[in-house]
Formats: sequence, structure tokens, C-alpha cells
Amino acid sequence: MKIYDWHTGPYPARVRIALAEKGLQSRVTFESVDLWKGEHKTDEFRAKNYSGTLPVLELDDGTFIAECTAITEYLDALDGAPVLTGRTAREKGVIHMMSKRAELELLDAVSVYFHHATPGLGPDVEIYQNAEWGLRQRDKAINGMRYFDSVLRQQRFVAGDAFSMADITVIGGLIFAELVELAVPGDCEALLAWNQRMQERPSVRDRITMSEPQRAAT
Amino acid sequence: MKIYDWHTGPYPARVRIALAEKGLQSRVTFESVDLWKGEHKTDEFRAKNYSGTLPVLELDDGTFIAECTAITEYLDALDGAPVLTGRTAREKGVIHMMSKRAELELLDAVSVYFHHATPGLGPDVEIYQNAEWGLRQRDKAINGMRYFDSVLRQQRFVAGDAFSMADITVIGGLIFAELVELAVPGDCEALLAWNQRMQERPSVRDRITMSEPQRAAT
Repeated sequence: MKIYDWHTGPYPARVRIALAEKGLQSRVTFESVDLWKGEHKTDEFRAKNYSGTLPVLELDDGTFIAECTAITEYLDALDGAPVLTGRTAREKGVIHMMSKRAELELLDAVSVYFHHATPGLGPDVEIYQNAEWGLRQRDKAINGMRYFDSVLRQQRFVAGDAFSMADITVIGGLIFAELVELAVPGDCEALLAWNQRMQERPSVRDRITMSEPQRAAT
Repeated sequence: MKIYDWHTGPYPARVRIALAEKGLQSRVTFESVDLWKGEHKTDEFRAKNYSGTLPVLELDDGTFIAECTAITEYLDALDGAPVLTGRTAREKGVIHMMSKRAELELLDAVSVYFHHATPGLGPDVEIYQNAEWGLRQRDKAINGMRYFDSVLRQQRFVAGDAFSMADITVIGGLIFAELVELAVPGDCEALLAWNQRMQERPSVRDRITMSEPQRAAT
């Protein structure tokens, strides 16, 4: 399998963490797609993923799977022993809900803030910006942090009492927030303590060094 | 189980179709949440679903599951014989990718257009609007229709050769587009033919009459 990503990207981090949690690192190679040069927005890359986002997983049969949740579903199902996406109907439902909520209320909101209300990836890549919308999304993300703090005051992990894909999505959100200097409010003690625990997990800690950026031979 | 929704809503349609495809209609009751009165944005409803969106599934143990993909995962897993979300790793990956893409590029884009660049649910509910952003999303949705048309020129269903959750999400997108009078371009022949086939499926055809709007006893 091959993964197209960018080593420091917050969305790529989600799949790198999932890979490590599943012990699948040795089964993939990485190919860098330089976000800062807008390589993910070229026609060539959009033929792999219409939405022009990273990461993308290429299977050995040539199938491309984009979207972090979809890639995580794939990786988690490979060995028939899902540990990230839920075993029972209830686990699947709650994990998917909390992961989607973490996208809507935190990770995607930070991303829109970055791309619309900051210089983002620079003028050559950010062809259209809507600063007002970006700033609304920044505020939404801060509210999202407060929401996840309230969740983590009640339970150890985002979707209950076990680590799951939903934790990975919130981790992605906080990685992105740190990159754009959007601080978690100091009174979000449960979220901050959870994040410290998460940063110590090997899958999270070693995500960037999982691969050194490598150029395609093209 | 109980479903909080609004009978004509495009997102509620996704879960109603999934229920019928799984033959689970008799196992749920419906409670109407009036979108046009903004009942989904009240503190009371947000305690059930922080994001303030419909539909929400309430399990018999009191657990709330929001987000259409999460509810569909739950319903599809109940009998141990998933037919909507994939059996193999590859099926799960491709279905989740195409369903998420249908949200990003079509359904959610139409929704943002409706809520931001039209009167939406009216001035009492649409407290903040960003018309420029809404119009961009309208254009994105039209492009999304062209993309799904290109997919359906190659294969019978959105995620391959079988009906799945990804078809349901595109159906939701076209239901919403019709509500807001956003026409599918006439040259999208494959998408239009597929949609005609989909509208004839009993699960799609009978979705609104599945329940008559019923007020809660509160």
C-alpha cells in the first residue's frame, strides 16, 4: 500500500496514528505531496482524489481511498479485529458520531480558519478566501474545545472508556490548532490532561518520523 | 428506538431510507423537531446533539446517536449482516469515502447554500448568514453533480456495483437540491437516470409517509 500525504499535516496525522495503532507501518510506503506548493490541488492529484485533500491511500490493486474516516475503516478492518472503529453496533455508532463531531466542531473548523482567515498555504494556493467565515470557524473551534473538555470530564476517552478513531480526530484537531497558534483555553483541564496522555502514546509521538519526506521518482 | 427528525428534511431522509432498506421501520417511533421553528437549535435539543442537527437516534438505554453516517453504521450492524456500509475492508473504505465525498461536494454544499444564500429557515433561525460563502457552495454543488455523473457513467451505483450508504448520501443531496430549486444540469444523463431509478426504490419513495408528524407529549 502507498500513502500520499505530507508529514506534518494534521489530517495525514490521523492516518499515521491509525497505522501505528494497528501495527501496519511496515506495510506502507509514503509519497510526499507538498501542500505548500499546492501539489494536492493539481489535476494530476485530483484524479486520485477529486476533493484535492490529503491523505490518500492507494491499494495494491490501484484503488484510491481518500478521507481519513474511510482510510481508518479500511485499515481497522484488514485483520478482522477492529480496535479503532467499534465492534458492536453501539460502539460503531458512538465512535462514528464522536469522530464526525470532532471534525465538524474542531478539526474542520480550525482548517477553515487557517485557509480563510490566515495566510494559509500562501497566495498561490489560497486562491479564494472568506475571512469572515474563517473567523466564525475559529470561534466555533474554541467552543468545540470546551465541548470536548466537558465530554472528557465524564469519561477517559472521546467515545467512552477505550481509545478509538474519535480520539484520533480530536488529536488531529489539537495538532492543527497548535500549528495555527489557537490555544486550548486554560480552564479546559480535562481536555488538556487527555491531550498530554495522548501525546505520550507512541502512535502519536512518532507520527512525523514514521517517514522522512521522500520525493516521487516522477 | 426513537428518531428525532423532520419528515421532509434531506438529512432525515438518509436515515429513513436506511431504516427501510434494513426493514427496521417497525422498531422505531418518530418525534418531530420543527426545523422551521428552530427547535433543533434550542438548548434542550442541543443536550441530545451538541451540533444541533437532525436526525438523532435515541437508543432504548437513553444513548443518543447523531450524524447520519453514525446512525447508518448502527442500524446496519444491528443484525450482523451489513448491506449498506460494506462487509470487506475494501468495501468499507470505498463506501465511506464516496459517502463523505457526497457530503462534502454535494449535500453539505447545498445545505450551506440554503442556509447562507437564500432565506433558509427564516430570519428567526438563520441568525448569521454569509451569502458569498453560500454562493460558492452552490457552485461547488453543481460541480459535485458533474463529478457524480462521471462516476455513474462508469458504474451502476455510487460506490461500485451495489446499492450502499454512498447512494443514500447522493440521494440526500439531490433531495435537498430539488427543495432549493438547484437543478441537475441536463447533460448529467447518468446521474439523472440513476436518480430516477433511486426514486423508484420503495425505501426512497415512501420515506416521508413512513411517519406522520407527531408532536411530543411534553
